[in-house]
Amino acid sequence: MSRWEPNARGRLEQAALELYQDQGYEQTTATEIAERAGLTERTFFRHFADKREVLFGEQENLLKMSLGAVESAPDTSTPIEIILAALEAMVPALQDRRETVRQRQSVIAANPGLQERELLKLAQFTFFLADALRKRGVTDPEASLAANTGNIVFKTAYERWAVEPGASDLSRLIQQTFHQLKSILSG
Amino acid sequence: MSRWEPNARGRLEQAALELYQDQGYEQTTATEIAERAGLTERTFFRHFADKREVLFGEQENLLKMSLGAVESAPDTSTPIEIILAALEAMVPALQDRRETVRQRQSVIAANPGLQERELLKLAQFTFFLADALRKRGVTDPEASLAANTGNIVFKTAYERWAVEPGASDLSRLIQQTFHQLKSILSG
Repeated sequence: MSRWEPNARGRLEQAALELYQDQGYEQTTATEIAERAGLTERTFFRHFADKREVLFGEQENLLKMSLGAVESAPDTSTPIEIILAALEAMVPALQDRRETVRQRQSVIAANPGLQERELLKLAQFTFFLADALRKRGVTDPEASLAANTGNIVFKTAYERWAVEPGASDLSRLIQQTFHQLKSILSG
Repeated sequence: MSRWEPNARGRLEQAALELYQDQGYEQTTATEIAERAGLTERTFFRHFADKREVLFGEQENLLKMSLGAVESAPDTSTPIEIILAALEAMVPALQDRRETVRQRQSVIAANPGLQERELLKLAQFTFFLADALRKRGVTDPEASLAANTGNIVFKTAYERWAVEPGASDLSRLIQQTFHQLKSILSG
């Protein structure tokens, strides 16, 4: 086996998701993941700190994209416009990986410990978004409320997109969910 | 020491909160709590399963009050009206215990593990509220969006109420936060 493996990270991720779905997350080891991907355990650990990072490693990138969008939003944008832009900034990367995201969701849905972790990660994400708004001069409670609204809208749209076979356009689901939320609050 | 102790639960809670604040939650034992309250360890464990339950035991009651309000809301109520009624239903019990609630908040704010637990408990709470809406015939995503809105509004109002010296009326803060959220979404 050569040291350079084409798309090793993607192959490991795919092998991991299949094993997590087939035999359960808890039961799967890094050795098995590497084996199924036709790679060595050492290669696995060059790409991921542990088997959990296969599921949560991508979130750092998504967070960076969101925070970048908050920073570069026009001065005239309202807090909620900035937050919606932050959500939109993640869409292309997610849309490119739709099948992987779906598999990831089904693994997380099957494991309460992973669900807790996902929830805590989203809360952290929301905290960083609120902080980025504060850096733009938005005060509290507006900054925190806008970021938390983004959290709800994203979570709802994302879960529909990941689960419903017909729901293909994440960007449209985000807009739709936002308008549903507005309409509920007026009810 | 007689077996019947007047207000043992309240005395244990107060002793626990003082110790958690003075020497830290992790460092405090059930034995110390009982000692400070002038009660036996056995009495402690008659009232609380462990030292964590001193902080989270009250939430079951609050949840019951909220779910009761969802069930008994008029048929003509909109989902968001029902959720606001569910939040209001907790106010008298919280208002009665304001000093205790404040102390509890400061203990939780000082401990990341307790913060995570609080967050997970709130998420569970939100899940139950959404479920109670579904039982009234509210469909998704409305049920989930309305319950999550309640979560944000409550969390924001509650934290201000627990922390700000001047913020004495929780009910008014809930209404105010709700209107701030509406105004942000229209922004």
